Amino acid sequence: LAKTRIVPAKPESGIPAVLLVRQDTLFVLDQRKLPRSVTYVTCTTASEVAAAITSMAVRGAPAIGLCAALGLAVVAKRSAHMSPDAFVRKMERAAGRIAAARPTAADLGAVVRRILDALHEAPPKTRVDAVVATAEAVKTELEAACARISQEGARLLEGRRRLMTYCNTGSLATGVGHGTALGAIIEAARSGKVEKVWVPETRPYLQGSRLTAFELWCAGIRPTVIPDSAAPSVIAAGEVDAIVVGADRIAANGDVANKIGTYGLAVAASLAGIPFYVAAPLSTFDIGCRDAAQIPIEARSGAELVQEVWGKAWGRRISAYYPAFDVTPGEFVTAIVCEEGVLEPPYPGAIRSVLAARQ
Amino acid sequence: LAKTRIVPAKPESGIPAVLLVRQDTLFVLDQRKLPRSVTYVTCTTASEVAAAITSMAVRGAPAIGLCAALGLAVVAKRSAHMSPDAFVRKMERAAGRIAAARPTAADLGAVVRRILDALHEAPPKTRVDAVVATAEAVKTELEAACARISQEGARLLEGRRRLMTYCNTGSLATGVGHGTALGAIIEAARSGKVEKVWVPETRPYLQGSRLTAFELWCAGIRPTVIPDSAAPSVIAAGEVDAIVVGADRIAANGDVANKIGTYGLAVAASLAGIPFYVAAPLSTFDIGCRDAAQIPIEARSGAELVQEVWGKAWGRRISAYYPAFDVTPGEFVTAIVCEEGVLEPPYPGAIRSVLAARQ
Repeated sequence: LAKTRIVPAKPESGIPAVLLVRQDTLFVLDQRKLPRSVTYVTCTTASEVAAAITSMAVRGAPAIGLCAALGLAVVAKRSAHMSPDAFVRKMERAAGRIAAARPTAADLGAVVRRILDALHEAPPKTRVDAVVATAEAVKTELEAACARISQEGARLLEGRRRLMTYCNTGSLATGVGHGTALGAIIEAARSGKVEKVWVPETRPYLQGSRLTAFELWCAGIRPTVIPDSAAPSVIAAGEVDAIVVGADRIAANGDVANKIGTYGLAVAASLAGIPFYVAAPLSTFDIGCRDAAQIPIEARSGAELVQEVWGKAWGRRISAYYPAFDVTPGEFVTAIVCEEGVLEPPYPGAIRSVLAARQ
Repeated sequence: LAKTRIVPAKPESGIPAVLLVRQDTLFVLDQRKLPRSVTYVTCTTASEVAAAITSMAVRGAPAIGLCAALGLAVVAKRSAHMSPDAFVRKMERAAGRIAAARPTAADLGAVVRRILDALHEAPPKTRVDAVVATAEAVKTELEAACARISQEGARLLEGRRRLMTYCNTGSLATGVGHGTALGAIIEAARSGKVEKVWVPETRPYLQGSRLTAFELWCAGIRPTVIPDSAAPSVIAAGEVDAIVVGADRIAANGDVANKIGTYGLAVAASLAGIPFYVAAPLSTFDIGCRDAAQIPIEARSGAELVQEVWGKAWGRRISAYYPAFDVTPGEFVTAIVCEEGVLEPPYPGAIRSVLAARQ
């Protein structure tokens, strides 16, 4: 596996593998370096997996969950020689460390709990296999969920020729499969009737202008990048027929936590009378959160926002506040697309039903 | 005049001179380099003045107008040896070149027309003096207008402890005096009762995190920089008591063209039930524009947005659209502060009256 290669200048070359396991090592595509170069971070310990998530080498709620699963599988295989008790303690510590890497995405905690459950339920001799098999199951299910979400989402977007998305929700964000909201757009574009895909750049990490633009380019679709601040007026000008975004956590009442800036797009869409769709796997739903107020919102370091401009001593001169997510009230969401189909308001009942049917 | 010096690490050191004339040369503070260094671009010809404006070494509608005035005065003094006819032709060409440097700000065209009128009305022997005197008058009037706007605006902000502004509307944007919207905030802060000033960074030029943050820091006020995309949710969360922004052009019906992103703030303010004020000198009003549809909106090169990420060949791979301004319908504007006082809806009548009283 080449650790660094320059992205080829040709489109339709495909997205590089996001998460790969080789010889009990997890290779994590460093998304901070895209689109200029394809570089992998290697992880063999829980600290390295947590660091890959915290530093945003890997990002996107489903990809973070999958990274945690594959990372725990690697730790399990590397700890196979331990005594049964030591192995369980080791895995519990690893799980705790990885689960704490980022607070907002629902998938991370859910995946880690699922792996710990499998570990605790398995007889001592099959614990390693149980962890590895659960990680594989997370991957397979996510791939199937993405395929279904892309298809359902594309159906919803039929006849809408000018689309807008936000942040990145393609295969880079899910780690496997075709992504969620961006998967729906790419699927919809197969009809040949999508004329424009608006991509706000998504400061400061630039998930839009770096990652979504890259994925669209790889899919042979020419994106139109705009400043985040331009999105509301582009929507108000009647230049967008539908918006579809992902989610990091969806509360029981349909409130959606997603990349900071999502709320402003939803409000503009509502004023302009165009649909605002959210596409996300069921693993994103958290009925333990009654509404937005109960979703923890990560505040990242202001350094990511201002250090480049003000230098390392920025904190002595100015303050900076960089919440990584905001919350869009369910009333602004036209529909939520998940692998079980399309949920429409009122959301509390629709979400309860779809999750109950799952169990 | 030192051409480059590093900004001192101490606050309250004052803003460096924005526009200076020395020995028939116009020195233009290069705002692209702030806050890291204080560098001046020198202009002795109309092309150099136009380039300083187009390249955004100087920006802000009133500062652009003042730069044009002082630039034309320099060209006039350097052309004093010409024959009367050649002098007029030279000045007309210079005026045309400078007026075309940027399309949206109302002040630029108005100032250039005023200088040409003075030129054409003056007897041949006093033409140079007429141009220089008119440029000086533009400067003096702007300084007085800024002082009045800051005071009127501060009165309007009384009792509002957490303020938000956008882009830069301080002395850097007016070139002289204390600015408009930011002047009002700095004036309001003298009461000691302003607790927070939210400053969206204003991509891609970063007028917020570079210039407004710098001016506030120089004034001894600690700004809080946020991503542009975070502003709507910070407003929705009840963290802002009032918003005050500037304007690049105000139509006869009260529609306001201002930095791209303003519309999204106005909409969020309206939903949150907080006042959204516009502070601008009368030179910003253009009753020749009936409404927003008649205001020309400058589209700057997409390279400013994506070249850093995608490299010079970006255009072969992706599209980028960077409108420099958007339009906020007058219905979202709580009041407009100008040097004649505070205008309230309905704007068509209020604007007609204040401009009529002026003449």
